Amino acid sequence: MSALPDLETRLTDDHHDSLRLWLRLLSCSSLIELRIRKAMASRFKTTLPRFDLMAQLERAPDGLQMGELSRRMLVTGGNVTGIADQLERAGLIARNADPNDRRACRLTLTREGRRVFAQMAREHERWVADIFEGLSVRDKRTLNDLLSRLRVTLRKGEA
Amino acid sequence: MSALPDLETRLTDDHHDSLRLWLRLLSCSSLIELRIRKAMASRFKTTLPRFDLMAQLERAPDGLQMGELSRRMLVTGGNVTGIADQLERAGLIARNADPNDRRACRLTLTREGRRVFAQMAREHERWVADIFEGLSVRDKRTLNDLLSRLRVTLRKGEA
Repeated sequence: MSALPDLETRLTDDHHDSLRLWLRLLSCSSLIELRIRKAMASRFKTTLPRFDLMAQLERAPDGLQMGELSRRMLVTGGNVTGIADQLERAGLIARNADPNDRRACRLTLTREGRRVFAQMAREHERWVADIFEGLSVRDKRTLNDLLSRLRVTLRKGEA
Repeated sequence: MSALPDLETRLTDDHHDSLRLWLRLLSCSSLIELRIRKAMASRFKTTLPRFDLMAQLERAPDGLQMGELSRRMLVTGGNVTGIADQLERAGLIARNADPNDRRACRLTLTREGRRVFAQMAREHERWVADIFEGLSVRDKRTLNDLLSRLRVTLRKGEA
């Protein structure tokens, strides 16, 4: 008998393992997202895409053009322009002409936006810490390391 | 000096670690989902929620009521009734009266639906295996184990 059937079995097992792994990753990610969405709604009457948009602006002190902002957002669902309009009406973000590109405008957090975001970010971080508290510091490092390596492969595939 | 400031620093570091971990998990999950969505569209002219719906029915030979189906679906985005209508019109799923519950109906895959799903599932599994090929068998086991433990904590929080 050749070694082929064994090799095939191993390949199939590996495929199944990868599939199980992906479904587990997706299910963890969806459950965490759902939990944070609910907490955002009940504690701050806001949505995860709004929080995400403000988080991206907070990390970009010079502001972002709409296109850059869309690319950086982590959460999908909801159009970015619509969310930006709501946040602008609420006085949390501002839209100004871009000094380097007259056709475009840049979005920044207002002073009030920075204040509101800081408060939400503090609680958000605590919720996330609670979610991962079942894992030890060491487990978290290992998980972080494995996901970083996975992301490197994923970024390569994008190019 | 008391040990308090040190404890606080450690707590804050741990919070930051958890936050970084969550953002990495979300980013991996979103990138993989995007890649599979694109492959489903270009290879089978179908969507991930449609595939997901068929996958849930394939795992339930006796069929599922609409409510059960919604709860089991992993992918959000798109209403389940609308997707089921499309799949029924395409002859891939069937809607029959539930023998145990006269007010409800159960959805099942048709013979053609099972054939189409088997073909898609085979390729889907290969795409997923390619995505994880940068990790060794051992890495995949470790990642799977850590995510399983994370999911246990998440399920507890749901109750």
